Amino acid sequence: MVHAPQRPPADAPPVRINLYSDTQTLPTAAMKEAMMRAELGDEQHGDDPTVHALCDRMAALMGKEAAVFMPSGTMCNVAATLTHCRPGDEIIAHETAHILTSEGGAHAALGGFQILPLTGARGMFSPDELRAHIRGKSRHTPTQRLVEVEQTANIGGGAVWPKATLDAIAAIAKEHGLATHMDGARLMNACVAAGVPAHDMAAGYDSVWLDFTKGLGAPLGAVLCGTREFIDDAWRWKQRLGGAMRQGGICAAACLYALDHHVARLAEDHANAKALARGLAQLPGVKVEAPDTNLVFFDPSGAGVGAAELVGRMRMQGVQLSMLGGRIRACTHLNVTAPMIEETLQILRHALQRA
Amino acid sequence: MVHAPQRPPADAPPVRINLYSDTQTLPTAAMKEAMMRAELGDEQHGDDPTVHALCDRMAALMGKEAAVFMPSGTMCNVAATLTHCRPGDEIIAHETAHILTSEGGAHAALGGFQILPLTGARGMFSPDELRAHIRGKSRHTPTQRLVEVEQTANIGGGAVWPKATLDAIAAIAKEHGLATHMDGARLMNACVAAGVPAHDMAAGYDSVWLDFTKGLGAPLGAVLCGTREFIDDAWRWKQRLGGAMRQGGICAAACLYALDHHVARLAEDHANAKALARGLAQLPGVKVEAPDTNLVFFDPSGAGVGAAELVGRMRMQGVQLSMLGGRIRACTHLNVTAPMIEETLQILRHALQRA
Amino acid sequence: MVHAPQRPPADAPPVRINLYSDTQTLPTAAMKEAMMRAELGDEQHGDDPTVHALCDRMAALMGKEAAVFMPSGTMCNVAATLTHCRPGDEIIAHETAHILTSEGGAHAALGGFQILPLTGARGMFSPDELRAHIRGKSRHTPTQRLVEVEQTANIGGGAVWPKATLDAIAAIAKEHGLATHMDGARLMNACVAAGVPAHDMAAGYDSVWLDFTKGLGAPLGAVLCGTREFIDDAWRWKQRLGGAMRQGGICAAACLYALDHHVARLAEDHANAKALARGLAQLPGVKVEAPDTNLVFFDPSGAGVGAAELVGRMRMQGVQLSMLGGRIRACTHLNVTAPMIEETLQILRHALQRA
Amino acid sequence: MVHAPQRPPADAPPVRINLYSDTQTLPTAAMKEAMMRAELGDEQHGDDPTVHALCDRMAALMGKEAAVFMPSGTMCNVAATLTHCRPGDEIIAHETAHILTSEGGAHAALGGFQILPLTGARGMFSPDELRAHIRGKSRHTPTQRLVEVEQTANIGGGAVWPKATLDAIAAIAKEHGLATHMDGARLMNACVAAGVPAHDMAAGYDSVWLDFTKGLGAPLGAVLCGTREFIDDAWRWKQRLGGAMRQGGICAAACLYALDHHVARLAEDHANAKALARGLAQLPGVKVEAPDTNLVFFDPSGAGVGAAELVGRMRMQGVQLSMLGGRIRACTHLNVTAPMIEETLQILRHALQRA
Repeated sequence: MVHAPQRPPADAPPVRINLYSDTQTLPTAAMKEAMMRAELGDEQHGDDPTVHALCDRMAALMGKEAAVFMPSGTMCNVAATLTHCRPGDEIIAHETAHILTSEGGAHAALGGFQILPLTGARGMFSPDELRAHIRGKSRHTPTQRLVEVEQTANIGGGAVWPKATLDAIAAIAKEHGLATHMDGARLMNACVAAGVPAHDMAAGYDSVWLDFTKGLGAPLGAVLCGTREFIDDAWRWKQRLGGAMRQGGICAAACLYALDHHVARLAEDHANAKALARGLAQLPGVKVEAPDTNLVFFDPSGAGVGAAELVGRMRMQGVQLSMLGGRIRACTHLNVTAPMIEETLQILRHALQRA
Repeated sequence: MVHAPQRPPADAPPVRINLYSDTQTLPTAAMKEAMMRAELGDEQHGDDPTVHALCDRMAALMGKEAAVFMPSGTMCNVAATLTHCRPGDEIIAHETAHILTSEGGAHAALGGFQILPLTGARGMFSPDELRAHIRGKSRHTPTQRLVEVEQTANIGGGAVWPKATLDAIAAIAKEHGLATHMDGARLMNACVAAGVPAHDMAAGYDSVWLDFTKGLGAPLGAVLCGTREFIDDAWRWKQRLGGAMRQGGICAAACLYALDHHVARLAEDHANAKALARGLAQLPGVKVEAPDTNLVFFDPSGAGVGAAELVGRMRMQGVQLSMLGGRIRACTHLNVTAPMIEETLQILRHALQRA
Repeated sequence: MVHAPQRPPADAPPVRINLYSDTQTLPTAAMKEAMMRAELGDEQHGDDPTVHALCDRMAALMGKEAAVFMPSGTMCNVAATLTHCRPGDEIIAHETAHILTSEGGAHAALGGFQILPLTGARGMFSPDELRAHIRGKSRHTPTQRLVEVEQTANIGGGAVWPKATLDAIAAIAKEHGLATHMDGARLMNACVAAGVPAHDMAAGYDSVWLDFTKGLGAPLGAVLCGTREFIDDAWRWKQRLGGAMRQGGICAAACLYALDHHVARLAEDHANAKALARGLAQLPGVKVEAPDTNLVFFDPSGAGVGAAELVGRMRMQGVQLSMLGGRIRACTHLNVTAPMIEETLQILRHALQRA
Repeated sequence: MVHAPQRPPADAPPVRINLYSDTQTLPTAAMKEAMMRAELGDEQHGDDPTVHALCDRMAALMGKEAAVFMPSGTMCNVAATLTHCRPGDEIIAHETAHILTSEGGAHAALGGFQILPLTGARGMFSPDELRAHIRGKSRHTPTQRLVEVEQTANIGGGAVWPKATLDAIAAIAKEHGLATHMDGARLMNACVAAGVPAHDMAAGYDSVWLDFTKGLGAPLGAVLCGTREFIDDAWRWKQRLGGAMRQGGICAAACLYALDHHVARLAEDHANAKALARGLAQLPGVKVEAPDTNLVFFDPSGAGVGAAELVGRMRMQGVQLSMLGGRIRACTHLNVTAPMIEETLQILRHALQRA
């Protein structure tokens, strides 16, 4: 009776190769065992040792003072903007940012914030673009308060913001008294791809979070990091938003397991994505964007097949892809192997020929 | 690094008997096994079969069209008022209601709602009290929109609202075009204690939810029920609030297990609470309220010991109690046995003698 | 086509004696002449010299750094709480305060604030009552931020908060890091009645405002005062709320005129109110509260006539009274003379005899 | 002590020719006399006959059922979106719309609405542009609720939306269940320029308002029109926002006067604007946009003088211009005569030569 946003046709075969999203990874047997063994307590009451361990570890990883466990990445974003800003403030972000396009207008609805959409290729704005949009205080405009970046840029094709760009943006923000927030839904993908440690990536940012349900493969959970005072305030919002859990450690244990076992292996996902992109590039009429990480966007229309049509055809062959902004998105992850990539390319070739 | 709201002294022994709250129950081995075996999918995408099963079952149990799985009871309350009301509306509730006293002002902060506090013994207002506070529309007052009850009434001592009262309140609300919402954090305690099925208890209420982390013993999760249209809208708020999970079924499985194995046994908790109350009533100077369910409130000040002082003494003996509104609260649950109640009474007798 | 909240019967004679409210005073010919002569400019643009003059004068009168002209007292309250507080904060006020009872839930709707209602006789809470309701920070409760008093207390019968009480309340607030706000809708009545200058009354308060449409007799306008930084921020909210005007000086001129000519004469209104109360006290069965200022509340039910019934009878004799909280309110002001009070008492005697 | 947003240099001469904005018109002697003669009452109480007369007349003029008097146009916009939408909704508007660029983020801050910025020349979007941005309901995006147009488009150069475009946009909105709102700050300029009656211009729009402080020359006030139910709800928001006045009729009288005497004469302002534009077009290096109404935008940079520099030079010659979006804006109105236009052009020629 749960509302289902999109359903395949009734005669669709089971999905064999799921390139839909890394959010659909299933916890491994070993991860589940770690969950079962976790020492638990009342998380809302400050008594869950596994949640404590995860928060301590994340704060260290991100180079911040403190951390708070959240049920989702969206709640990390919402609690962060509610903590940084007050109603009538403006958040500066890329026009494709998750907070603007994919959170149901939450930052206006719950916080009263307006978002100023910047432009730039591959989901990233430049330091110059930022500087051009900073304005003085005026009664006629919202008060600029926060600059947000999304590492990696999802709709930007999983693009990795270079550390130098992140630093330059943070420096401009500081210069103008603006706070900085990093949506790190897929931050570890960026770190692995760029060979930059997370605490370096996040160094200029007042708050940063990591999602464990994407490439890291946990069933739920994200951790938001910042100063102790910031986290204290964010905890208050977590309580109001309904994010305070009880024996949350059972889920935090999966996140700890992921930190131990699923970070380095993101390199495999990136290699698989590159292989897929190489294969796609050889298909006549298919335009593909070279992936930085685990997201491959392509447009088959030059081959005479619309994106939606091709997604449907692939689904009927047991391969699940998604559409985002008119293009097809293929996402590699924990449950996608190199042979699956080969098979996907074969099926794609077929599906395009039927055009 | 998680913020801890209250800490025992460093030399306190481990807690042996935890009467602090039924929120602190630990999942049993069998419940954890059910979690491990659960079939999973992307809950946010409408693809988690275990979440579906739980929602279907809860909708049937509550006699409503549809249901949505939430990370917490607070989110059920917040999403429900956000769905029922719009800014400038007034919610009518008891002055001790959780939505007014324990959710950080979330209904004003996130929704823009004012709460009109009614009075009445044991956390319950009467139909007459409600009727006396219904007023016509005026530009000077918020628009009355929603009547809320909390079954059982926590700060009211776990009191069970009689079904006849619930029905009378719902009838008055309908008569005046007001929506109705039941905070069912401990609804199954009420149903077991009163011998009234949940769908009868909730019959007059447009929305109702059940928490699985209290007496039912699951690590996290609550389910909100209502019409299909209501749940659709509540889902939209769940997404904005950051409550949409991924493989949420791993938690939903614990809730399904609890429905199968932890409902009928609430009668034991109630028997233990009654035994504790009987014992307390025999202690000179202790004033105790006769419990309807699993919450026992008492005031030891007549015995010459302050409530806070006594809670501290008991903690040093390994018994954890809590304070709520100046009184001591003892809560029975899954991890509290009849012999523990006996032991608690013995330790209490000692602790009071030291006064 | 304007919505009318309450209408007299069609056969009602014109109102000869209007004791309904001091908000219904009409501008005098001299006041209107002052309006016509006012030097004007674009107020929103900072260019209206008459608005400047009024703000400078009010800041000096209240002993604050700066001031802002608003279209109404309600906007002063709303802009002030929006400036002092952020969503999830709690405002402490008397349960009869205008911000709680008469502003349409605006502080929740527009600001996200919860109001904690204190009790106390005649619309005033004591310093002890305040102290008893200050609590520590917790994630489960809204953050206490602001203490509000209403001088005079309207529903409290126009009662004057003693300066010593105001000071004690402000001291407790400061001690706990809470801001203070004075709703001075009828502050000058209090100052005249108590013989205390406005800047002394407001000395402990971070913000204070005065309404010019009540006893002061201007057609519209109120002025909010505070620190320069506070007023700057309040101006931003005024702009958002739609309170920024253009040639606002034409209305500000009436306010300046009122400061010159209508303050000292409030003593007449108070004398008239006292005379009315004395007369009422002699009517058998009528219970009257001794007035501090220009509001007289009385209850005729002991004489066998309901309040609403009596208001209706008086209206049919050309005397307009109002009802507030089940009692009758008579308000003296600029357009009410001593002979009118005599006549009102005569008509009342008659009207009660018909019972 | 009022905050002043921008100040000329101390040695600047008085302004002789004010092309800054039509908001700076001063009420004429005749208008002020009408104000003095106005019959007054308590507007907030529904008792001001002059406010009634204005609202009745405006409802008829706009072809709507009802109307409400507001202190400003911004409050008309804010009250309208608060009435049409609920938090989490999306408003579709041009990227230069006043509600997005010039109201301090009020629609997010006070309402919780996200604004989707459409593009298009001269401040107007096409029906096709609208259609391309309408999407289905999804949990990830705000719910589209309202389409807004600004007639005339201020930042678009005072451009007049053709009636056919307005009708086509309204038809698309209705087709998709979206409400429609017209910001008519300068609607009468559009009606006079296009020869289309206001009720025709507004025919497809659920709500529409007119500002009286611009070309119409009143010191303050705007009137919002819609269905009786809409206006009733908007009145509730007016009360919360602090827009309810007392003897508001004294200002409404100026608006009634303006309807009688200042509408037809807008044609003169348009003729003056065209004369100014023609003259500007003859200045070498100056790029000017052909005006539809009373706003002339031009860019002098081709003549080797920056816009800000030129505005400063003109101000030192007693001519006040403004800057908007990097261009210079000259605005004709009630206090600007044909000879002043000639003089302005002469001074401009000089000022540019000094480059």
